[in-house]
Amino acid sequence: MIRVAINGYGNLGRGAEQAIAKNEDMELVVVFTRRDPATVTTQGAPVAHVDDMPAWADKVDVCLNCGGSATDLIEQTPAAAALFNTVDSFDTHARIPEHFAAVDAAAKASGHVALISTGWDPGLFSMLRVLGEAVLPDGATTTFWGPGVSQGHSDALRRIDGVVDAKQYTRPVEATVAAVKAGDDVELTTRSMHTRECYVVAEEGADLARIEREIKEMPNYFADYDTTVNFITAEELAAEHAGIPHGGTVVRRGHTSDGVAETVNFELQLDSNPEFTGSVVAAMGRAAVRLAARGESGARTVFDVTLADLSAKTSQDLRAHYL
Amino acid sequence: MIRVAINGYGNLGRGAEQAIAKNEDMELVVVFTRRDPATVTTQGAPVAHVDDMPAWADKVDVCLNCGGSATDLIEQTPAAAALFNTVDSFDTHARIPEHFAAVDAAAKASGHVALISTGWDPGLFSMLRVLGEAVLPDGATTTFWGPGVSQGHSDALRRIDGVVDAKQYTRPVEATVAAVKAGDDVELTTRSMHTRECYVVAEEGADLARIEREIKEMPNYFADYDTTVNFITAEELAAEHAGIPHGGTVVRRGHTSDGVAETVNFELQLDSNPEFTGSVVAAMGRAAVRLAARGESGARTVFDVTLADLSAKTSQDLRAHYL
Repeated sequence: MIRVAINGYGNLGRGAEQAIAKNEDMELVVVFTRRDPATVTTQGAPVAHVDDMPAWADKVDVCLNCGGSATDLIEQTPAAAALFNTVDSFDTHARIPEHFAAVDAAAKASGHVALISTGWDPGLFSMLRVLGEAVLPDGATTTFWGPGVSQGHSDALRRIDGVVDAKQYTRPVEATVAAVKAGDDVELTTRSMHTRECYVVAEEGADLARIEREIKEMPNYFADYDTTVNFITAEELAAEHAGIPHGGTVVRRGHTSDGVAETVNFELQLDSNPEFTGSVVAAMGRAAVRLAARGESGARTVFDVTLADLSAKTSQDLRAHYL
Repeated sequence: MIRVAINGYGNLGRGAEQAIAKNEDMELVVVFTRRDPATVTTQGAPVAHVDDMPAWADKVDVCLNCGGSATDLIEQTPAAAALFNTVDSFDTHARIPEHFAAVDAAAKASGHVALISTGWDPGLFSMLRVLGEAVLPDGATTTFWGPGVSQGHSDALRRIDGVVDAKQYTRPVEATVAAVKAGDDVELTTRSMHTRECYVVAEEGADLARIEREIKEMPNYFADYDTTVNFITAEELAAEHAGIPHGGTVVRRGHTSDGVAETVNFELQLDSNPEFTGSVVAAMGRAAVRLAARGESGARTVFDVTLADLSAKTSQDLRAHYL
């Protein structure tokens, strides 16, 4: 059994907990938290304060760092990599080289493997981008996101004066997705690729026209998109928009000779973004343990793992039944 | 530059030749053939008889074995693996363990890496089946093939008395694909998953009703499917059915918790089956060279290569631009 720790018990941490329960070769041995452990209730695993992590160094095969990218992981992953093999889902694209270097130093010093930036984007989408380009070098890769909830855009809506609560869905423009898959000539712009759909609960008596205008004119977040605004009640928001669905598509289209085109599509449709991300992080935990068992150490990414490393099956099983 | 040899110059060998030309880090140094080399014209590479392979042992980094699975590869790959790192696209699923063992012995004895059963199925589809199960262990994987040309079924049509030429397209039943992706309750049977569409050129004066009946009642090939038969002229066959398109879809749908489902779809739409297969084989050639450079030897499969092994880019580039 792979002994797994979860570091951080928010949406992603709970998603990873569900995922570990689905994997017969894994057991959750501890959840680390910055809160008072007595206030955290898991589905059964013991809870320890992050300050007590060192006591678990010999009892954990891999630690899944489930904090946020904005501030948590940049410190959490190097700290955990000093004690354990680790996995994180660091997704601030511009800072990945810097994060890799810091984690690599910590992991090499302690002799552990630290898999960074897993999940689905970065993560599975990244893997498919590299795969698509490797098999179709003469082509173009296009990524569409959604339909799904954008947390950052939902937060931006909530900061508007008069907004009580809100949820924002990002949707790919289906006609553009179809055109890219078919290789039709289509201009790829912010507006042609995605729309933004807002469900907003306003304060009683708020100026709805002003709120809608502020949303649609908000630079970066909404101004460059076709944005729709729907005002709904708090009850409707709770009843119909409680989930955190997401997904997207990576399309690689390339030519293998003159006039001969091939298309590789990879698509995710997720009822729960954090549960699926947790599932990927858990599988990557298995891979980190396998890499470490081969004597590797340092930071790694999804580009450094094999399918055999990710699978609970033996190579013999995989060859006989999955090829 | 990776010095590549092609062993066998049929449709797949020519597809691999196109692919090598698209990869800036590869050069085609020789094409091996069982025919008289003087009768084989490539796009520029020298041609040598297979009996002269040993003379190329030090001049080739990887040999792409492009023979057929029925009889060629079972001998071709072990023979080539005694001299070179190799890649093949062996696709007789039931004999893969046996082929792996024979190739493994030859490659280990000579200190080379031999990647077997690459291409898209087996190959990319196999990778996605393992990836899908690793990230969604509680679920089901379904593979659909087509729309595309089935060579075996086209051959079966041509063996019918009164048939001059023919082409058979396999098509997934779109409603069934949609149901599987949506998780709707659908019975997966031979008939519910694929249809077979036949374009047949008959001899003048042949009994078309008899031919159509023989096709539709042919066991294994057509009897279990909804099969349509279209009689066309040799000119129409040449004008409208000259290509070798193919493709398919691997769907993994699983639950991450009660009532919460996630779907992973991987889809290929290929204008040219042999050119795309050749492209995958070429990328796998790069991976075989990388594995060998790390000191590995023996038989390997697509489950044993990383995305970094497949890519022409450096790991640093991949982290900075593809994650």
